[in-house]
Amino acid sequence: MSRPTLDFFFEFASTYSYPAAIRIGALAKTAGVAVRWRPFLLGPIFKAQGFDNSPFNIYPAKGRYMWRDLDRICGGLGLPFHRPDPFPQPSLLAARIAYAGLDEGWGEDFCRAVYRAEFADGRPIGDEDVLRDLLQGLGVAAEPALVRARADEIKARLRAATAEAEQRGVFGAPTFICQDGELFWGHDRMADALAWAVGLSS
Amino acid sequence: MSRPTLDFFFEFASTYSYPAAIRIGALAKTAGVAVRWRPFLLGPIFKAQGFDNSPFNIYPAKGRYMWRDLDRICGGLGLPFHRPDPFPQPSLLAARIAYAGLDEGWGEDFCRAVYRAEFADGRPIGDEDVLRDLLQGLGVAAEPALVRARADEIKARLRAATAEAEQRGVFGAPTFICQDGELFWGHDRMADALAWAVGLSS
Repeated sequence: MSRPTLDFFFEFASTYSYPAAIRIGALAKTAGVAVRWRPFLLGPIFKAQGFDNSPFNIYPAKGRYMWRDLDRICGGLGLPFHRPDPFPQPSLLAARIAYAGLDEGWGEDFCRAVYRAEFADGRPIGDEDVLRDLLQGLGVAAEPALVRARADEIKARLRAATAEAEQRGVFGAPTFICQDGELFWGHDRMADALAWAVGLSS
Repeated sequence: MSRPTLDFFFEFASTYSYPAAIRIGALAKTAGVAVRWRPFLLGPIFKAQGFDNSPFNIYPAKGRYMWRDLDRICGGLGLPFHRPDPFPQPSLLAARIAYAGLDEGWGEDFCRAVYRAEFADGRPIGDEDVLRDLLQGLGVAAEPALVRARADEIKARLRAATAEAEQRGVFGAPTFICQDGELFWGHDRMADALAWAVGLSS
């Protein structure tokens, strides 16, 4: 019997995607679930809803709460947490590099490295030098990776992932979608999503 | 040593307030936490954020997800669930009656009865006859309760609770606020809020 698959839609600028991305690999392995890492961009989806910025910036009370909530969550998980400034960070280039890496076996490690740089170390993940440094830290040749990340084929895949996310009902990140279409939104629903995926295969 | 106190801010039209209101009494008793039931109105708070309707109606993808998520949550808890139509239900009179009842010892039972009527039985909780029926079901004389609910003093208390909620950082419901001001939003943070309250007293 093949392992159940879970689509993991995440955005590098998304705060709650940080603990999800760091944790999902180990939890999915224990659960026997294969995870498809799907970086996408929230910007176009927010824009379609009429937002020209993160809702956490547009609605200050909600934003203040989110930072406090994330701080508590990371504290409980033993994850270092540093609030990115500015927020949100530009995530386009990182997402394109991630697609290049997911083809070549270093994509998931790269995604985790981006989240750690952004939310643990407070580094600007829109900066090409920072991304180059992260690639080198993974033993990946940075320049060829950056060239591939800017290829039309990769750009089209990121656009397609974003369109697919929106079409399947994604309105925020992280979002987990099971093979039957069941959707779970938020780091705090990740365990439910894995359990649902397992239930489908039994 | 006195028991720690937790402020429970809820709105009768709020979907996730339903499982919270049904469950918080027993969970708080086990935890040794005293709960102050604080009905308030989300309408003025949403209006200040620029919403003239529930965000779940304004953002359809988010709304569709919420209904599915709530259905799963209620299923997991063994709570019956019926989607109110129309949504949101008018909650003003129920909230005023609740304040009258909280003075007289039947307020918490009334709140649970309203949520069950709305989300388990699909009854229109803005309808005075429905509220009268719920009061009678609790053995409360309905007419005097309705008269008290419409007294200026009760109206002012509901306005004050709403203003206090907004001033303390509430932007949605249910919200739980501990004595040190620590705020937790959502049914899925209720256990964390109780644990935080307990931690303050030890």
